Amino acid sequence: MSRLQETYPADKVVLREVGLRDGLQMVKQYPSTAAKADWLKRETEAGVRHYEIGSFLPAKTMPQFADVRDVVDTCNALGIHSAALALNDRGAADAVQTPVCEIVTVVSATEEHSQANARRSRDDAIALVGRTVDLAAKGKTKPLVQAGISMAFGCSITGDVDPDEVVRLAVECADAGADVVGLADTVGFAGPDQVADLVKRVRRELGNTVISIHLHDTRGMGIANAAAALDAGVRVFDGSLAGLGGCPFAPGATGNVVFEDLVFLCERKGFATGIDLEKLIHVREIAADQMPDEQLYGALSRAKAPRQINWRALN
Amino acid sequence: MSRLQETYPADKVVLREVGLRDGLQMVKQYPSTAAKADWLKRETEAGVRHYEIGSFLPAKTMPQFADVRDVVDTCNALGIHSAALALNDRGAADAVQTPVCEIVTVVSATEEHSQANARRSRDDAIALVGRTVDLAAKGKTKPLVQAGISMAFGCSITGDVDPDEVVRLAVECADAGADVVGLADTVGFAGPDQVADLVKRVRRELGNTVISIHLHDTRGMGIANAAAALDAGVRVFDGSLAGLGGCPFAPGATGNVVFEDLVFLCERKGFATGIDLEKLIHVREIAADQMPDEQLYGALSRAKAPRQINWRALN
Repeated sequence: MSRLQETYPADKVVLREVGLRDGLQMVKQYPSTAAKADWLKRETEAGVRHYEIGSFLPAKTMPQFADVRDVVDTCNALGIHSAALALNDRGAADAVQTPVCEIVTVVSATEEHSQANARRSRDDAIALVGRTVDLAAKGKTKPLVQAGISMAFGCSITGDVDPDEVVRLAVECADAGADVVGLADTVGFAGPDQVADLVKRVRRELGNTVISIHLHDTRGMGIANAAAALDAGVRVFDGSLAGLGGCPFAPGATGNVVFEDLVFLCERKGFATGIDLEKLIHVREIAADQMPDEQLYGALSRAKAPRQINWRALN
Repeated sequence: MSRLQETYPADKVVLREVGLRDGLQMVKQYPSTAAKADWLKRETEAGVRHYEIGSFLPAKTMPQFADVRDVVDTCNALGIHSAALALNDRGAADAVQTPVCEIVTVVSATEEHSQANARRSRDDAIALVGRTVDLAAKGKTKPLVQAGISMAFGCSITGDVDPDEVVRLAVECADAGADVVGLADTVGFAGPDQVADLVKRVRRELGNTVISIHLHDTRGMGIANAAAALDAGVRVFDGSLAGLGGCPFAPGATGNVVFEDLVFLCERKGFATGIDLEKLIHVREIAADQMPDEQLYGALSRAKAPRQINWRALN
């Protein structure tokens, strides 16, 4: 079995907790390196195995990710899967110097957003995916490479996004060697039918490439969109503890889909996650302690998982 | 066309705002009669046409519903559809003395909950549905009668609920003359597949009886469950402004599915609601002003409806 299949088995749901990356993207306060280690340790004890934990960027731009190397080391010591963002050649070169398990690159779904956000064309972004794949292959620990397509369901600049374009970009990412292609509802415009339709089209084109989905709950559709993606065959989902993350294009809005609620959804839909919800919910205490000004979201943490029914999937 | 068909057209989604009933079920503070009138007026201006607005109960038990007759009159003056709970013969007799448009009776899905909560058997509850139907038929304004099956997807006492039992009770409610049969996830145990399965079974049995669904967001599944119910053919949905309502069996938990987010879901799934989200969101100000200690929920109210895309359904 390849490392890709070991990391993302086709027949299992994999939930990636991205609170320490996307959850910290816009915050003013952020957890200390020790608190991040505690966060990862306690979530691992709760059964979480996949994480996105930072970004390889100049520390002065994003001080919250200055300790990304330490956090990667923590993940390795815990034996869990670490992914980190690398948004340019320098970041990718830095990433492959570490034992990070997966490098995440980003391609905007629209030319307008690509130019405005990354100051590069989409073609250049695809070329960067290819160079990152080459670097990763030469790296000591040969990390997997994910190409995440941001604004895949709607764009903060152009509004509607042509799904044909997203399908084309997904194929180009796969052709460039990405192991995983991610579809991101960056601004929370998506509805469930739209998610199902796009996922089905991309799956038809991509064959064996793993597809992941990154949903924001900006407009309350996060869990419904995840349910639609599950039904359409996606098995790799991002979510953040307590729904941390926000949306850079909707100030004050709710963030990523709430990881705890996503666990409950998967279990109720018959997919065993191996995650202990009660232990997981307690990890929110670290977020509350380290980022007291951040709003924490989620329903499970208030109501708790039902004790009266067996809500756990059996597979 | 019958009044039932006029009220609940088979080809349109009807969203019932139940904030002034279920939303006030457990609160210590509640809006004044004048504030309730303002609430209804402003929601009507936003395009909402269906409401559950109170309960015919002794005022000393539930002072928040003591003004139910005034609120019914307000609804009639506004030309909107009013529904109100009547949980016993006295309540039903009181209700038919008013021009309320719909009387809602409740049958528990399990014998245990029926006895514990209403101190009657399920058979007695079905018999009460029949007597309410008779009273309604003799009433001056001949209100419609809804029988809501509480705990239809899981019970606070027994845990799992046998769907065969819910189907049987739904048929008995329809046979007793209920115009509308409601399925309620009272404690928020349901997942989307469970909702779809039960709805399909009940629809097969009930023929022309209108089916409504009443979802709580106790564990974050509210919108995903609503999406599943829509896909399975339900066209009548309850929701409460700002997700007011809570769950009597999960203290501090989130409440009913958020009405504003439900509107967005329906529109994104191709069902025109006729509701102006921006105007609707502003009505939350009344809830915030009149019940400052109540937690208000919802994502749309923070992020607002997207301006960049045309998210409105066209039908």
